[in-house]
Amino acid sequence: MNELKLTKEQSLEVKRQFELYSQGVQEIIPTEELEVKIAKSIVENRPLKIKLGLDPSAPDVHLGHTVVLNKMRQFQENGHIIQLIIGDFTGKIGDPTGKSIARKQLTDEEVKHNAKTYFEQFAKVIDMEKVELHYNSKWLSNLNFEDVIQLAGKITVARLLERDDFEERMAFNKPISLHEFFYPLMQGYDSVVLENDIELGGTDQHFNILMGRHFQEKFGKEKQVAILMPLLEGLDGVEKMSKSKKNYIGIDESPQEMYGKAMSIPDELMMKYFELVTDFTPNQISTMKAELQNGILHPRDAKMLLANTIVRMYHGNDAAENAESQFVSVFQKGAMPEDIPVVIWEGNQEVSIIDLLVELKLLNSKSEARRMIDNRGVKLDGNKVEDSTLSVTVKEGLIVQVGKRKFIKMKFFM
Amino acid sequence: MNELKLTKEQSLEVKRQFELYSQGVQEIIPTEELEVKIAKSIVENRPLKIKLGLDPSAPDVHLGHTVVLNKMRQFQENGHIIQLIIGDFTGKIGDPTGKSIARKQLTDEEVKHNAKTYFEQFAKVIDMEKVELHYNSKWLSNLNFEDVIQLAGKITVARLLERDDFEERMAFNKPISLHEFFYPLMQGYDSVVLENDIELGGTDQHFNILMGRHFQEKFGKEKQVAILMPLLEGLDGVEKMSKSKKNYIGIDESPQEMYGKAMSIPDELMMKYFELVTDFTPNQISTMKAELQNGILHPRDAKMLLANTIVRMYHGNDAAENAESQFVSVFQKGAMPEDIPVVIWEGNQEVSIIDLLVELKLLNSKSEARRMIDNRGVKLDGNKVEDSTLSVTVKEGLIVQVGKRKFIKMKFFM
Repeated sequence: MNELKLTKEQSLEVKRQFELYSQGVQEIIPTEELEVKIAKSIVENRPLKIKLGLDPSAPDVHLGHTVVLNKMRQFQENGHIIQLIIGDFTGKIGDPTGKSIARKQLTDEEVKHNAKTYFEQFAKVIDMEKVELHYNSKWLSNLNFEDVIQLAGKITVARLLERDDFEERMAFNKPISLHEFFYPLMQGYDSVVLENDIELGGTDQHFNILMGRHFQEKFGKEKQVAILMPLLEGLDGVEKMSKSKKNYIGIDESPQEMYGKAMSIPDELMMKYFELVTDFTPNQISTMKAELQNGILHPRDAKMLLANTIVRMYHGNDAAENAESQFVSVFQKGAMPEDIPVVIWEGNQEVSIIDLLVELKLLNSKSEARRMIDNRGVKLDGNKVEDSTLSVTVKEGLIVQVGKRKFIKMKFFM
Repeated sequence: MNELKLTKEQSLEVKRQFELYSQGVQEIIPTEELEVKIAKSIVENRPLKIKLGLDPSAPDVHLGHTVVLNKMRQFQENGHIIQLIIGDFTGKIGDPTGKSIARKQLTDEEVKHNAKTYFEQFAKVIDMEKVELHYNSKWLSNLNFEDVIQLAGKITVARLLERDDFEERMAFNKPISLHEFFYPLMQGYDSVVLENDIELGGTDQHFNILMGRHFQEKFGKEKQVAILMPLLEGLDGVEKMSKSKKNYIGIDESPQEMYGKAMSIPDELMMKYFELVTDFTPNQISTMKAELQNGILHPRDAKMLLANTIVRMYHGNDAAENAESQFVSVFQKGAMPEDIPVVIWEGNQEVSIIDLLVELKLLNSKSEARRMIDNRGVKLDGNKVEDSTLSVTVKEGLIVQVGKRKFIKMKFFM
C-alpha cells in the first residue's frame, strides 16, 4: 500500500469498500491484494473488473445463487464492472465419455435460451444494463491443438490432482477422464482473456478460481483476487441449497410461497440468511444479533422480518406486506387465507373423499390421499377428516384444505 | 484362426511369416492377433500396414536404430507396406515449459532437412521407394480444442500415470507438466488416422504403442498389434546404444571405423548383434551358436564375421573384405596399415614430441599428449616413446602412431 499515495479521504474510501466487500465472505485470497486493487482503482479512477462464471445448463436461480449476486451488486453499486461469463464452450461439448447425463450437449439455441433465463432473473439483483456479457466459446473455440499444448505446458499434473474431488477419486481408484482436467484450465484461461481483477464464486469454486490466478501469472498478467462466498444451506438447514435437493427458495416463486418457505428456515440459520441474501448492512445485522441475544427481539419476529425482506427484494413492498398479513392470518391465527382458488365442480354431488382430493389435484394419487387423511392432514370447512372412506356431499362454497397451505373453494357448474 | 479358411499352403505361409517376424523380438502384444493379421492378409491378398514413428529432432542413425529397421525390412520383403511417420507436429511445438533443451522448437526447414537425413540413411536398409511417408502435423494441426477434449475424454488420468516414467516422477514428487500427457495421445491418434495393422518400436515404446491400440478401439477401428524390439546395448556392453553415450556404430561411418568398433563389442553380446542388426537367418544363427559352444568356431572368428557382415551391409562386399584384411594386418599381425595418411611438415626439423603430437592434431592438447605418452600409447616408427620431454628430429617418412588406430606418415615440404 505504501507505493500508492492516498489522501486521507481516499484511505477512508478504501477502508469503507474493503469492509463492505469483506462482509459475509468465507475467504479472500489474498486479502492484502484486494486492498491494493481497491486503492489503485480509486487513485487511478479505474473501475475493477469482477468476473462471475455461469454454467449454462441449469438456469433456475434460487437464493443460494444470490449470495454471490448480492456481492456482485455491492461492487456494481460502487462503480465497478461485472463481467458475466456464460461457459457455453463447455456446455456445447457435453460429456465426451457419454457417462454424465447432467452434462448433456446443449445446442446454440438452448445456450441462448438458458442465458436469457439467467439474465431475466439476475435483473432482480443487479443492473443488467451495466453488465459485460461474454460467451467463452468466443475464444476457446479458436484454440487449436498447439495452443492447448502450450496451455497445458503451464500446469503440472500434481497441481491438478490437488483438487479435492480429483484427489479423492484417485485415492479410491475411481476414474478421472483426462478431459476433466480441462474444465479448470478453461476457467483459468477465461481470466487470462478477460484480464479481470477479481473472481467471485462459492467456496466449492476455490480450486477453479485459483486456476485463474495461476494462468494469469503464467501469461504475464496481473493476478486476480479470489473472493469465495459461503455456501448457503437450504430450508432443511443441512444440505447446500439446490434445486435437486428441493430445499430451495426460487427467486421467481410467488410472494406467498417465498414467505412461507422463509418462515420454515431453522432459527440457527436465520442470521446467516440475513448476512448472505438480504440487503441488510453489517451494522443492522450486529444490532439485530444483540437484540436477539438479550431477548429484546423474539426469534419469530426476526424470522418474519427475514421473510418480509426476501419477498420485498423480489416482489416489492406491497407484496411483502400482503404475504405477511396472509401468513399471519392463516398460520398464526389458524384462519383461512382470503384469496382461496375456486374450482368449478362438474362431477357428481356425492363423491368419496379420496376421489375428491385426487380430482381436485390436491394430491397425486389415491394412496397419497389416503395417507394424508390418516395423518389428519385434510380438512373440510375447517373440520379434520378422520375417515378415509368418507362420502362427501359437495355443496356450493365448500372449502377443501390439504396440509397447511393448500386450499380450494368449490363452486358448482351452472 | 478357425473362421479363416486357409489352404495347407497358406497355413504354411502364415507360419513362415509369423516365425520370421517373431525372430529376435522382445514382445508381441498380442501374439495371436499377429497370426490372425498375417492370415487375413494372405487370404484377402491385402498387404499389412506397418507403422514406425520417428522423432524429427535427432536424425543420426546408428546400429541401435537398425534393430527396428531390419524388422521393417522383413515385412517389406514380404510385400507389406511400411508407414513412416515423422512426428513433426511435436517437433514444431518444442517444449512449452521451456525447460527441455532436447525438445527445442524446430522450423519447417529443420524438420524437412532432418527427415531427408533419415531417409538417406534408411535407404541403406529398406526400399524407400515403397515406403509411405506421413507427417503427423497434417492431421494434428487441424484438431481444435473441442477435438482435443473429445480425444482426452477417451482416456483416464490413472491409465496415463501407469507409464513408467510418469509413475516414477509422481512417486518422487517430480513435476509432470500436463502437456506431456499429450505425447502418448498423439502417437495413439496417429494410429487411428493411419489405420495401421502393426506398430513397431523399441521396448521403451511399450506404453506409447499400446496407446495406439487403446485409441483405435475407442474410435471403432481394428486394433494394431505391438511388436517391441529389444534395446541394443552399445559397444560398452552396458548402456543402450546412443549418440550421447558415444557407444555407437553409426551407419554412415567409414568401413575401417565400423569394422574396428564392431571388433570391440564384448563377446557375450556378439550373438545378440547377429540376431538384431545383421541379415542372418534364425537357422544360421542357431548353427553358429552350436559351433561356438562345441568349440568348432573360435569367438574371434565369429566376431570377425560379425564385423565383416556389418560393413558389408552398409558399404558392400569389397569394402568389407578390405576393412577386414587391413584390420588383420594392423592389429592381428602388429603391422602398420597400408594406406597411412601423409602429412606435409612445414615446421622445424627439431620439435618436442608433445608439440609434434598436438601440431599433427593426433591429440587435442599438450596435457592429453603427455598423458598418452605416460600411458605408453605413442610410437615413432613402431618404437614406444617413454619420455614426454623427448626432442624429435623429423625426417622424411617418419611414422607417428597414437593408440591402436591413428597413424601419420611425415613428409617434408619441398
